[in-house]
Amino acid sequence: MNFSEFDALMMQRALDLAEKGIYSTKPNPAVGCVITQDSKVIGEGWHRQAGQLHAERLALLDAQQRGFFVKGATAYVTLEPCSHTGRTSPCSDALIEAGIGRVVVAMQDPNPLVCGQGIQKLQAANIPVDVGLMQERAESLNLGFIQTMKTQLPFVRLKMATSLDGRTAAANGESQWITGDEARKAVHFMRAKHGALITGIGTVLADDPSLTVRLTDEELASINLTQDNCHPIRVILDPHMSMPLDAKMLSLPGRTIVMTSKASAESQRSQIDAFYAKGIELVAVAAQDDVLDLESVLHYLAQEEKVTDVMVEAGSIVAGAFMRSGFVNELHCFVAPTIMGDKAKPMFTLPGIEAMSDKLPLAFQSCNLVGQDVHLVLTPTTQKG
Amino acid sequence: MNFSEFDALMMQRALDLAEKGIYSTKPNPAVGCVITQDSKVIGEGWHRQAGQLHAERLALLDAQQRGFFVKGATAYVTLEPCSHTGRTSPCSDALIEAGIGRVVVAMQDPNPLVCGQGIQKLQAANIPVDVGLMQERAESLNLGFIQTMKTQLPFVRLKMATSLDGRTAAANGESQWITGDEARKAVHFMRAKHGALITGIGTVLADDPSLTVRLTDEELASINLTQDNCHPIRVILDPHMSMPLDAKMLSLPGRTIVMTSKASAESQRSQIDAFYAKGIELVAVAAQDDVLDLESVLHYLAQEEKVTDVMVEAGSIVAGAFMRSGFVNELHCFVAPTIMGDKAKPMFTLPGIEAMSDKLPLAFQSCNLVGQDVHLVLTPTTQKG
Repeated sequence: MNFSEFDALMMQRALDLAEKGIYSTKPNPAVGCVITQDSKVIGEGWHRQAGQLHAERLALLDAQQRGFFVKGATAYVTLEPCSHTGRTSPCSDALIEAGIGRVVVAMQDPNPLVCGQGIQKLQAANIPVDVGLMQERAESLNLGFIQTMKTQLPFVRLKMATSLDGRTAAANGESQWITGDEARKAVHFMRAKHGALITGIGTVLADDPSLTVRLTDEELASINLTQDNCHPIRVILDPHMSMPLDAKMLSLPGRTIVMTSKASAESQRSQIDAFYAKGIELVAVAAQDDVLDLESVLHYLAQEEKVTDVMVEAGSIVAGAFMRSGFVNELHCFVAPTIMGDKAKPMFTLPGIEAMSDKLPLAFQSCNLVGQDVHLVLTPTTQKG
Repeated sequence: MNFSEFDALMMQRALDLAEKGIYSTKPNPAVGCVITQDSKVIGEGWHRQAGQLHAERLALLDAQQRGFFVKGATAYVTLEPCSHTGRTSPCSDALIEAGIGRVVVAMQDPNPLVCGQGIQKLQAANIPVDVGLMQERAESLNLGFIQTMKTQLPFVRLKMATSLDGRTAAANGESQWITGDEARKAVHFMRAKHGALITGIGTVLADDPSLTVRLTDEELASINLTQDNCHPIRVILDPHMSMPLDAKMLSLPGRTIVMTSKASAESQRSQIDAFYAKGIELVAVAAQDDVLDLESVLHYLAQEEKVTDVMVEAGSIVAGAFMRSGFVNELHCFVAPTIMGDKAKPMFTLPGIEAMSDKLPLAFQSCNLVGQDVHLVLTPTTQKG
């Protein structure tokens, strides 16, 4: 398929619109739509939040409100229009009913069960559909949605804050703060993008972290969130149910799920009531040798909590286990310009790595200065996800 | 002083010319010169190598050879023309004799004893001199020359190759290779820029390194060096004179200086002959508690060997000592996209660093992808140099 320069410009615009929703649409994908008539934009829309109108319907409404006729117009959509009736009726029907003359789609629906059905519906109504314009960028906006649809597991970002020499806490345990204001601000925006935030019980016991999104009302408004809906679910990996009932996070906004082993949940039934009384949600998952099975943890979050994007912020044991599991899709390192020395805490506890041939291989995706720190993004080169 | 846009363009050109010499002029500074007449370039020159003509004389010669008259012309020089008779007669005299009408200088001579004398000589001959155009870039080309002139100590770059988690060798000691081809190539170019390369005896015993510049004839030609003159002096910090007489580097091109303590040199006189027989140059410097005094090491290299730029490539003990000494001017980290785990070797051994408040502060100057790796450049924020 050859797309025109105008097609490219319009899809670019639709993708820019879609991007406005990447913080607020979860678990839905971020989608943008531009409608043009005679090389002129007559309507625009982007999906804001689950339960609200989809991008295509908003763009049709926009055109109508601006007094334009959409008959024969071209619709640029960043994701294949839906063909199934969810909380709203199918967008493909809406485009057909409106008399749209051509549809350009950046990427097909990633759900293998419905992939292509929206396009087929449009084609069956004799509307030409061109697919694949700027597909890569379209995919990059919805990595979690795509991965969850395809694998039933969420997209996992492991975030670490380290010194230049790869240390996450001083020898005496202090870790606040290694990175500067701007990197920490970037982390709070990053948290707001995720449906769940995983940490280990060791971090809870050592640091008593809040694990909230700490952004101003203005900052949240800029990403279409509020103080009420910005916090990811906190997930504590706690194989022995050691979660302190006075943990700071329990009095803060946002849900807290403690994941423990089935054995612990059975042997410590009295503790369960205490947890519930504090608002802790307890989930028992598979475990081996006192280590929770990470696939079960992730599967639960994707299937039961509809979480498409998980962020892990943890100490060296949980971080090492995640890296080794192969379930990490992106590693985000915020590296501070400081040296903490050989006695400070390591990034990854990885028993059994002894030789150069054992090392875990990744690939750099980007490196950028963020305030006084450097933000490195890597992807494992041997990942399961 | 207000410089014209034309002035800026010409000085830019002179700096570009100067930059061609940054590998080959050591211990001299890299200098470029452009001569213009009626807004036209009539002569250009840049210093290639100690003992050869200076930039100003080459530019005058160039103008002459091209058939131009330089009387009343403007000379753009990246460094104040010299006023003293070294291997060549003073460049300020040459400019005066040629009848140059105006001189624009990027930066004054950094040597506090002669600073401004070249400019005064020109002014005394009624030639207007304008100073300070693009001074910052001019300084950046000759950091080692400037620092040695001002402090009698060389500019020190500490280079490390590490995994993402700050490890320089696997638990079993293997370290070849952590970084990829392109980063290692960049390191060889970096070595070629330096007058001396310091490492510790521990690295010699563990890795038996070559510490040579391994570049092709073409690569060396591109920086005006040859296989014969490209190697920095290898300097081994060896407090107990443990240097193995069969070390690989001893059969490779380039000089090897072993620095030891005065006490060792006196107590192991028999070893001295064996060292000399192998071509090792032995230098005894001050030491305390079996640790060589780094200021004495650096002072020796600047004063006795005319080294303006020193590169340190060492294990965690020497690297830690250098970082703590305050003599490091730039830290270059080539970070590989790999994880080596908590058992692997640390970057810096720094006894006594226990709390966050003890950490050594630096500042990032740049971060760039180099092949598969990331190159981070930092400067300590509390440095002596």
